[in-house]
Amino acid sequence: MGAKLLAMNALETLKERLAEINDLQNAAALLHWDQATYMPAGGAEARGRQLATLSRLAHEKFVAPEIGELLQNAQPEDEDEKALIAQTQREWERAAKIPVEFEARLATHTASTYEAWTRARPADDFASVRPLLEKTLDLSCELAGFFKYQHPLDPLIDFSDPGSTVAQIRPLFAELRKNLVPLVEEVTEFQETDVNVLRGHFPEAKQAKFSRRVLTAVGYDWNRGRLDKTHHPFMTKFSLGDVRITNRCSENDFQDYFFGALHETGHALYEQGIDAKYEGTLLANGASSGIHESQSRLWENMVGRSRTFWSFWYPQLVELFPNFTHVPLDTFLGAINHVEKSLIRTDADELTYNLHVLIRFELEAQMLEGKLAVQDLPEAWREAYRENLGVFSETDANGCLQDVHWFGGTIGGAFQGYTLGNILSAQFFAQAREEKPEIDYEMAVGEFDTLRGWLTEKIYQHGAKWLPNELVEHATGRALELEPYLRYLREKYTT
Amino acid sequence: MGAKLLAMNALETLKERLAEINDLQNAAALLHWDQATYMPAGGAEARGRQLATLSRLAHEKFVAPEIGELLQNAQPEDEDEKALIAQTQREWERAAKIPVEFEARLATHTASTYEAWTRARPADDFASVRPLLEKTLDLSCELAGFFKYQHPLDPLIDFSDPGSTVAQIRPLFAELRKNLVPLVEEVTEFQETDVNVLRGHFPEAKQAKFSRRVLTAVGYDWNRGRLDKTHHPFMTKFSLGDVRITNRCSENDFQDYFFGALHETGHALYEQGIDAKYEGTLLANGASSGIHESQSRLWENMVGRSRTFWSFWYPQLVELFPNFTHVPLDTFLGAINHVEKSLIRTDADELTYNLHVLIRFELEAQMLEGKLAVQDLPEAWREAYRENLGVFSETDANGCLQDVHWFGGTIGGAFQGYTLGNILSAQFFAQAREEKPEIDYEMAVGEFDTLRGWLTEKIYQHGAKWLPNELVEHATGRALELEPYLRYLREKYTT
Repeated sequence: MGAKLLAMNALETLKERLAEINDLQNAAALLHWDQATYMPAGGAEARGRQLATLSRLAHEKFVAPEIGELLQNAQPEDEDEKALIAQTQREWERAAKIPVEFEARLATHTASTYEAWTRARPADDFASVRPLLEKTLDLSCELAGFFKYQHPLDPLIDFSDPGSTVAQIRPLFAELRKNLVPLVEEVTEFQETDVNVLRGHFPEAKQAKFSRRVLTAVGYDWNRGRLDKTHHPFMTKFSLGDVRITNRCSENDFQDYFFGALHETGHALYEQGIDAKYEGTLLANGASSGIHESQSRLWENMVGRSRTFWSFWYPQLVELFPNFTHVPLDTFLGAINHVEKSLIRTDADELTYNLHVLIRFELEAQMLEGKLAVQDLPEAWREAYRENLGVFSETDANGCLQDVHWFGGTIGGAFQGYTLGNILSAQFFAQAREEKPEIDYEMAVGEFDTLRGWLTEKIYQHGAKWLPNELVEHATGRALELEPYLRYLREKYTT
Repeated sequence: MGAKLLAMNALETLKERLAEINDLQNAAALLHWDQATYMPAGGAEARGRQLATLSRLAHEKFVAPEIGELLQNAQPEDEDEKALIAQTQREWERAAKIPVEFEARLATHTASTYEAWTRARPADDFASVRPLLEKTLDLSCELAGFFKYQHPLDPLIDFSDPGSTVAQIRPLFAELRKNLVPLVEEVTEFQETDVNVLRGHFPEAKQAKFSRRVLTAVGYDWNRGRLDKTHHPFMTKFSLGDVRITNRCSENDFQDYFFGALHETGHALYEQGIDAKYEGTLLANGASSGIHESQSRLWENMVGRSRTFWSFWYPQLVELFPNFTHVPLDTFLGAINHVEKSLIRTDADELTYNLHVLIRFELEAQMLEGKLAVQDLPEAWREAYRENLGVFSETDANGCLQDVHWFGGTIGGAFQGYTLGNILSAQFFAQAREEKPEIDYEMAVGEFDTLRGWLTEKIYQHGAKWLPNELVEHATGRALELEPYLRYLREKYTT
């Protein structure tokens, strides 16, 4: 057997192994989805065990030395194969550096921390989770220590936003803050909005009907997905042919369901748009948290909160909901874009949302640097909110206990993607409209083919073939830049 | 380390291995359930692959030599542990005898045969599946050949009804046929029923409401289960805390939904009743196809088609469905117990159903004996229907192509359980009523605790701890016997 045949076999065998691992991961994803949608309470205990088994098997199979050998022997022949090897090599090396024993310790600790948090948050009881969070910080540092880094947060960021570092993000976020804080001040002082028009009674069936109509229009493929109810909306994927979204509904509020659905659909359009040839490999994923979030935000905010969009859809909305009969479009637009300095990230508007993220990013960076002790976190949190948003929370429930992230994994790496996504959404959207000016005209008549087409061509179809920075460069001809986002915000909120 | 400690460790390790395999099987069960309920069409291709991967991994892990060693070294200390070892040993030896290579060949062949059948049945095209079915027969003989047997059907029966053999079933079924054929003649000649009262418009929401009310009353635990829609009703389990049923609905027919739901609930009550201590092992299953079917039939037929049952529920039914306002209870009871000599097994009534099964059992026995060639099957089928039921089908679609069983696995082993279940359902029901005469009074007021309690105590809680014949002996003090079933049928249909 010639060396070339051996190498080809290595690549084929590698693909088979990866497909098997992918099957296990996708099965786990379905178990998660079912847990969040339909599973009866009695199934919870066994489900936790089943998920742990599937994750463990997938992990064991991936970090096996055989994968390393196959990676070494495989000789990629085209660009896709090269990308597959490179991406798999990256993930394999990363995974191989983390001892199985550590993974188990972290998983056990995370389970008990999460459980404690579900009780501590409603009880506003930071003291009860403090020792657990201290251990989480230790484990996060230990995890970072398996890698070379400039800043201990860097390896944790790299898991979700490959290539990004504290050294790059800090000045970017500082520049964003410098612009955001005065902008928020200005907008909140002068805006004249009536958010009450979004309150009232909005029957669930009608909300679902309207949302489904819009999702169909933006291009969500129902033949390769579905929408179910859950407590916390999310997008999940079991194959490129089965990309589902979930949502929740409040009948007293119009915003929650619609923008939640559009947000998750942004994620789903990305996944549904990945080229089928990558199915079963690591390339059949989004490129990073930030790139993924750029798509949910683009569709939710740039499209879904724009005047152009509603100039078409508002009449249909009014027809379905008599609540809006006497509400002018301008009032409605003001309400869905209302800016408010508030305490809770998940309730925050487009503009202040980033300040919530920046606060968390900086606090976790300082904790990992050893400059902020867990016991001082509640105070540091209050101070950061006072300084950045001018609001003050009496409770930790509405302070540093509000997010699950630090209590459901490590401290570090989970927040920066939200704001990177916001920044990128503007850069992509600006580029698309520049190249395809018809996007605006189409949006005004409820069509989105050109926009989705551009995004598919430049971003979606490539999956995780490129690193995030390469993808941004390919799509826009430039590295990530803040200016389009600032321009978008200034235009939208000051004119 | 002492020998006893080693042995204990072997048992613990064995339980861990079995739990892992169980997790994979339960994950596969959820993937199946999702495929049959909510999966969008686009997910089909990948889902097939994912199911194959999970099954293969579970199988590989089970037939691993390590399991054999653990079984050998484990020293069970109590009755449960002994049963666990014995049952696992049995399944392991059986699985180990089947070469992995054969499993793969059979799976590949089955996939293409099933696919061909889905096209052949509507097209009434037996010729197109004949060569495939011939290969299925060869593979079925090959499979049987991995085991010692008196009759080649025996090992195939043993997969689903351990301990049963052709030598035992043939005379039993012959005796049943001898009684059934004249009984069917007599009943169909003299019955005066109006099945049209079951036709009309029955809104799905109301059908679901009524069925759920009854399922709750018989004791289905919604906290450990749920009911979803599908094309072909089934019961499935992801853990003892998550036992689901599925159902379909025709708004033009009252029987389908209600009796389908009650049938699957019978299966589910069995699984929900298994002692939690068996979770994660092979004992957390029903004892056999026949025992399982005895429970679906007991609840569907003995309970759900009885006068006592409807004396309580009929007024509620009438209240929900004005369709029945002018239909006397007797007419309704006649309609739901209407006997008809027909061509299709799945539409058959309680009485003739067994004749459909007996026909299939005898035909597959003869095929495996080499006495009936696949090419002669359509004619043999027609002849058997003429002889047993006095009906004649022009088409094979309504003849030997009507059931999926032979086209979705092997020929042999899938049918006998239905009739064994019918026979056993009467034996169990008679025993329960003899020991607990209050069962009838309770049923007449819509209560089922004593009946379900007796079944749980005698059957459900023990899972697969005993072989079917042991279980029947434990529950009724006697081996399987036909007489209670014949008595039940005679009483019901001739008085």
